[in-house]
Amino acid sequence: MWNNHGMPLSDDQAREIEAQRAAAVPTRRGTVPALAAMLFEPFPVLDHGFVRVVDYMGADESVVQAARVSYGKGTRKISDDRGLIRYLLRNAHTTPFEMCELKLHVKLPIFVARQWVRHRTANINEYSARYSVLDKEFYLPQQEVIGIQDARNRQGRGRTVSPDQAKRVLEILKQDAETTYAHYEELLAPTPSAGGAPEDAEPLARELARINLPVSFYTQWYWKIDLHNLFHFLRLRIDPHAQHEIRAYGEAIARVMEAWVPLCWEAFTDYRLQAVNLSRVEAEIVRRLLRGEPAGSWAAELSKRERDELAEKLGIDPARLG
Amino acid sequence: MWNNHGMPLSDDQAREIEAQRAAAVPTRRGTVPALAAMLFEPFPVLDHGFVRVVDYMGADESVVQAARVSYGKGTRKISDDRGLIRYLLRNAHTTPFEMCELKLHVKLPIFVARQWVRHRTANINEYSARYSVLDKEFYLPQQEVIGIQDARNRQGRGRTVSPDQAKRVLEILKQDAETTYAHYEELLAPTPSAGGAPEDAEPLARELARINLPVSFYTQWYWKIDLHNLFHFLRLRIDPHAQHEIRAYGEAIARVMEAWVPLCWEAFTDYRLQAVNLSRVEAEIVRRLLRGEPAGSWAAELSKRERDELAEKLGIDPARLG
Amino acid sequence: MWNNHGMPLSDDQAREIEAQRAAAVPTRRGTVPALAAMLFEPFPVLDHGFVRVVDYMGADESVVQAARVSYGKGTRKISDDRGLIRYLLRNAHTTPFEMCELKLHVKLPIFVARQWVRHRTANINEYSARYSVLDKEFYLPQQEVIGIQDARNRQGRGRTVSPDQAKRVLEILKQDAETTYAHYEELLAPTPSAGGAPEDAEPLARELARINLPVSFYTQWYWKIDLHNLFHFLRLRIDPHAQHEIRAYGEAIARVMEAWVPLCWEAFTDYRLQAVNLSRVEAEIVRRLLRGEPAGSWAAELSKRERDELAEKLGIDPARLG
Amino acid sequence: MWNNHGMPLSDDQAREIEAQRAAAVPTRRGTVPALAAMLFEPFPVLDHGFVRVVDYMGADESVVQAARVSYGKGTRKISDDRGLIRYLLRNAHTTPFEMCELKLHVKLPIFVARQWVRHRTANINEYSARYSVLDKEFYLPQQEVIGIQDARNRQGRGRTVSPDQAKRVLEILKQDAETTYAHYEELLAPTPSAGGAPEDAEPLARELARINLPVSFYTQWYWKIDLHNLFHFLRLRIDPHAQHEIRAYGEAIARVMEAWVPLCWEAFTDYRLQAVNLSRVEAEIVRRLLRGEPAGSWAAELSKRERDELAEKLGIDPARLG
Repeated sequence: MWNNHGMPLSDDQAREIEAQRAAAVPTRRGTVPALAAMLFEPFPVLDHGFVRVVDYMGADESVVQAARVSYGKGTRKISDDRGLIRYLLRNAHTTPFEMCELKLHVKLPIFVARQWVRHRTANINEYSARYSVLDKEFYLPQQEVIGIQDARNRQGRGRTVSPDQAKRVLEILKQDAETTYAHYEELLAPTPSAGGAPEDAEPLARELARINLPVSFYTQWYWKIDLHNLFHFLRLRIDPHAQHEIRAYGEAIARVMEAWVPLCWEAFTDYRLQAVNLSRVEAEIVRRLLRGEPAGSWAAELSKRERDELAEKLGIDPARLG
Repeated sequence: MWNNHGMPLSDDQAREIEAQRAAAVPTRRGTVPALAAMLFEPFPVLDHGFVRVVDYMGADESVVQAARVSYGKGTRKISDDRGLIRYLLRNAHTTPFEMCELKLHVKLPIFVARQWVRHRTANINEYSARYSVLDKEFYLPQQEVIGIQDARNRQGRGRTVSPDQAKRVLEILKQDAETTYAHYEELLAPTPSAGGAPEDAEPLARELARINLPVSFYTQWYWKIDLHNLFHFLRLRIDPHAQHEIRAYGEAIARVMEAWVPLCWEAFTDYRLQAVNLSRVEAEIVRRLLRGEPAGSWAAELSKRERDELAEKLGIDPARLG
Repeated sequence: MWNNHGMPLSDDQAREIEAQRAAAVPTRRGTVPALAAMLFEPFPVLDHGFVRVVDYMGADESVVQAARVSYGKGTRKISDDRGLIRYLLRNAHTTPFEMCELKLHVKLPIFVARQWVRHRTANINEYSARYSVLDKEFYLPQQEVIGIQDARNRQGRGRTVSPDQAKRVLEILKQDAETTYAHYEELLAPTPSAGGAPEDAEPLARELARINLPVSFYTQWYWKIDLHNLFHFLRLRIDPHAQHEIRAYGEAIARVMEAWVPLCWEAFTDYRLQAVNLSRVEAEIVRRLLRGEPAGSWAAELSKRERDELAEKLGIDPARLG
Repeated sequence: MWNNHGMPLSDDQAREIEAQRAAAVPTRRGTVPALAAMLFEPFPVLDHGFVRVVDYMGADESVVQAARVSYGKGTRKISDDRGLIRYLLRNAHTTPFEMCELKLHVKLPIFVARQWVRHRTANINEYSARYSVLDKEFYLPQQEVIGIQDARNRQGRGRTVSPDQAKRVLEILKQDAETTYAHYEELLAPTPSAGGAPEDAEPLARELARINLPVSFYTQWYWKIDLHNLFHFLRLRIDPHAQHEIRAYGEAIARVMEAWVPLCWEAFTDYRLQAVNLSRVEAEIVRRLLRGEPAGSWAAELSKRERDELAEKLGIDPARLG
């Protein structure tokens, strides 16, 4: 089990998980063997984080089942499940996907958690640093993802820094995390000064002591979301523009989704992740090129950057866009 | 099975349900035997409606599990599950209850569906009368719930009408439902007039033909909701001020909840359903009465109706409120 | 004013609207003259419906203002408002659009209302037929939109029926609406039979009497939604696959949006309404065609119907798709 | 203006706000003079934070207006606005309150922001530390709110620490915030080492550099919410169990609400903030006491702590509860 391999699962958590995995009772609810196999098992993410499937409701079949309620005999013609699921996603009939639900236990740095909660259509129970003491666990990036500020993409990361600079970055991050955590511990359990009054050394309220900790520290939560909203989450969070660290979680969850609802995952890949969206102007340019005409004045409506992006999407030489 | 007892389940539905009930596979997910026993089984509601559990996620234990993530070691002191669940509900810590989810298949009159959808924090897949043809099933109230307009409660139902009047009410409702349905069928499959052109007798679009049907006709949907929002739904919909017909569904779902999460149900009953809410003024009056003082000028801030309601809540003679 | 032109605004409503329009006070909040000019003025929709702007918050500038909070100095480079709004929509940065809010008063047939409420991220106050009596107003389609059931599109309307058949359709719809409404009135105010007891002729509860009315009857509501969710509503509801009747409302609201936030409307048109979405396979086919290669085996992954739709999107001969 | 008084508003922000305040145009939308007077003006909160009204939609009258749509002529009887608003809140008819909307600009420490976002039914645009550089502004508590960990309330703050301990707490918090910020600046603009290569001193990506900063640093956002959900936010966040720092924001927003919708605020105070909720058991005890009977075995169902809390709510001697 994970915590036997140096992973950051507490002994209590490990015991509880082991117990859950041991017990199996018969159920007539829909089950997914591939997902059942990974139930309760933490997938490591970043240096101390994880994603762990706690429970799920539904499967590919549940999407089909819900759609058949909606469309009644109208769905008979689309004879197989795969065809129906693809039809639904292609035509933005998204409510049947809301009939599946996934519950995860996630351990993640606070700055990742801050991006994550912007997805409001989900349920969250987060570890409370008002009630309990945070562990000494903070995120340090691996050297290869320590990048400079991208010059063009204002929110992005450019090339990896030199080994020397990386060393200095990690030194700073580590040192500050350790100093602030040592201070956190001191605030929670102050040492009485020699001859000092005992009331000068009482534990500070946890809700105050924790304000000293950097956003690189790990928190954890239970997170529950339906499949439709999970599509949306993944679409934004495994996008190359998402910050590397949340993308690592997105990728782990994508593997879970693939095991859980393989037909939905395939349709999601084809109609969302790997789809190409053309704006009104871009679509008109494509129509002209397909007719053998030059892009002409239409191309002028796009900026240089937009033309480059379009050429890349279409796999053509940017020169064809004027 | 229900449809063998004259209940309105189609043969197809019955066969599908039978198949689901027959198959059972082992699972390590949390299960609730009492709810498992009623899985897929329709509970009759009104004359043609039903409520049927399709799936569920979580149990009393899941609420506790989620709370322990939030409060960490802070929850150790509240030693048992029942105590923790009651603590959570008493103190409006509602997010752990969102970790349970229930999926129902419901058949209900359109006018009930219209009230039901006002609860927006739920997922719905409704039978579409644009795609498919509605069955000839409409709601006729039982005689004892045919009431006159309440004089005081502007949205309510007063005493039952006389048998003669009830007969006339049912006659009207039945006759109009049958006439409009016959016309619906005619619109969908017009009879060519003698010598008429065949293009004068083509089926009208289903989305148009159905606009003729009264809101007493039955529709059906899959409905999925988390436990916290289900509390809210039930609190409003099994209230005496809710319309009788939606209350009948609320009562059926309350039975499901009781079997599913008995500890949550008990806490919900104690802290919500049977709780008494006192406004600032009412609380002050109670304080005075408990001190042995008259309600005095405080009572004058309430209307006659509010005083009567307060006396009833407190089980005292209205005269004590001046 | 509208009700002076035979439109279905009650005298009370007309007076109230007149009073609102007369009073103007100075404000430092953002205002939009083009929308201010249409404030409170009902736009007729269908035969008895309307859409009326009651209030609004924000304008194009508010989207920009909110984005600049998010991106700070990062937004300086995108120098003008139009460019920033287009950038936001192109890159699915949707939260700034949530900072604008629109409140409408809408009168609409019940079957349209039933489709409308599926958009859950909005606020609604609907006229209650439990409290009040519905007016005798029901929807009758104009002859040119009375269509047959489409053979291919199972939820759609095909060609217009013949004048003879249209006449019969309207006859049925009108007659049933009038009969049921007459019965509704009788249930609400029964005539005592000769020699009958007065208690045999008391008004039936309004909440029961109304179950007799067809879904073609009009209801009304206040509806409030933010701009991001309004984009979503319009995208689905002015789509050719939406039912004609709700599309009529969508078109009216689109005119309101255009007056209110012209830059957002333009971006929405370019990046959503008139955008073309290509699936993974479709995108690959386009890339091959642009390279001068045949679609080949890729085309075989699409059904005949999908190939036809793709050819139409691209403005090419379906034969090129094999 | 605020920034002239040493308050943390940037010059740019100050100029923009001044310009907005200067311009006033006539509008026929509902306005609230008391709120208009405070439009754009920041209210200081904590040491560097603020709450600032950016825009609003609706007023007390809008709640009434929406309710009258719902209840039609049914609302005539409740003759005045105040009565209707109180009736709505007393009976949990909450949708009319959703028709009012408030938009705030808030500057707040990250740990407060983390609690705040748990209210999901609101719109947020937050300053992005991926795009832009955070200012050197962090929260230091005033000495009188530096409290020890409460022994009984596991999430709370007990008595104030001694001046000596407070000094040490502030020293730690200040020193760590300054050190981490200095390092943040170094990461963003590293000094080339003597003889070092220039590529060893390129700015680190902002999204990485910021992970070093403690949660005491300030962020800012635009926040938009409807009145119904604002009730809920305030009820939880001005409660004595809320953390002191978010309560300070709650109190500032409460002053805004009072100016904006005075009748709603009064009703909210009477029926929510100062209301007393009695559980099933507590209500039964009150009934017995009012009948002059002892609480008896009912009191035994409550814990010592619950009995104390009940006695306090009722203003009676705990001994009366056995």
